[in-house]
Amino acid sequence: MIVLGIDPGTATTGYGVVVGEPFGSLSLVECGVIRTNARDPLPRRLREIYDDVQALIARHRPDALSIEDVFYAKNVRTTVVLGHARGVVLLAAEQAGIEIHEYPPAEIKKAVVGTGGATKEQVQFMVTRLLRLKSVPQPTDAADGAAAALAHIMSARLPKLGSSGSVVSPRLRGRSPA
Amino acid sequence: MIVLGIDPGTATTGYGVVVGEPFGSLSLVECGVIRTNARDPLPRRLREIYDDVQALIARHRPDALSIEDVFYAKNVRTTVVLGHARGVVLLAAEQAGIEIHEYPPAEIKKAVVGTGGATKEQVQFMVTRLLRLKSVPQPTDAADGAAAALAHIMSARLPKLGSSGSVVSPRLRGRSPA
Repeated sequence: MIVLGIDPGTATTGYGVVVGEPFGSLSLVECGVIRTNARDPLPRRLREIYDDVQALIARHRPDALSIEDVFYAKNVRTTVVLGHARGVVLLAAEQAGIEIHEYPPAEIKKAVVGTGGATKEQVQFMVTRLLRLKSVPQPTDAADGAAAALAHIMSARLPKLGSSGSVVSPRLRGRSPA
Repeated sequence: MIVLGIDPGTATTGYGVVVGEPFGSLSLVECGVIRTNARDPLPRRLREIYDDVQALIARHRPDALSIEDVFYAKNVRTTVVLGHARGVVLLAAEQAGIEIHEYPPAEIKKAVVGTGGATKEQVQFMVTRLLRLKSVPQPTDAADGAAAALAHIMSARLPKLGSSGSVVSPRLRGRSPA
């Protein structure tokens, strides 16, 4: 199973492509970030994110997209702009006909670290360990993308997570991270 | 000048294509709504909106897209889902290389009715009158799309509106309707 994990953002979208099976070995194929310039108009930034996600899908032909669910930032405007970015990522995956799985941040942490209340550092540590890397993927948004991919692959190990995350979500879940 | 006006939404996206000049005659070429099924997964709904907007652009080859700026609904989730829909509309316009203009709801009302505090009925009345139609376009979301198109064309009549709306907005404006 090849999974493209995405941690969406307008300024920096982290991604990670992970190959593996729930109970088998896991390996990182590629990870990185899509950066857009905050001074550019939003439509141009959305096109860059869309083009880059489309290119990632073409390059790796993933079986699924695993994407972090909306993080409700304190600033409503930030959250809304993030919605625009997620919109074009979901569109690219939908057009490619791949499965789409959305996980709230707490479920990604739970799948990767074992607890929904894990810190960012704990997630990075486990991503590094699970993928047998020498160091934490940099920038750390790339590690967050890889964590999203890992969470989907490992969801089969966690019945609860599997049941809530294994179908295409017909709606956005309104949960905040724990 | 041919302008595609869009009033975005996930369930119903209203649109209107208007041809005209700021001080010349105005005419409606087409208006209607793009409806998506609330039971469908969000990615599919986004693809439908994107495909339909792309088809509208291909059919009418507008010079500009005029789109209602984010309406901050009381329900944050509604606002965020709306952000996803706006994201794919902006993407379609950006890919087509057409100008993109964003107007807050109050500026659309001001351009069409003369006051930012106009009611929905006043906007519908003026859209019907300005476009010399026999009745209000139905459903009314279609009239809202036509209003967005009219607002852009008529912005040259209102220096203040013209200055804030005539450049591609590099950011979302965080204003609520008056």
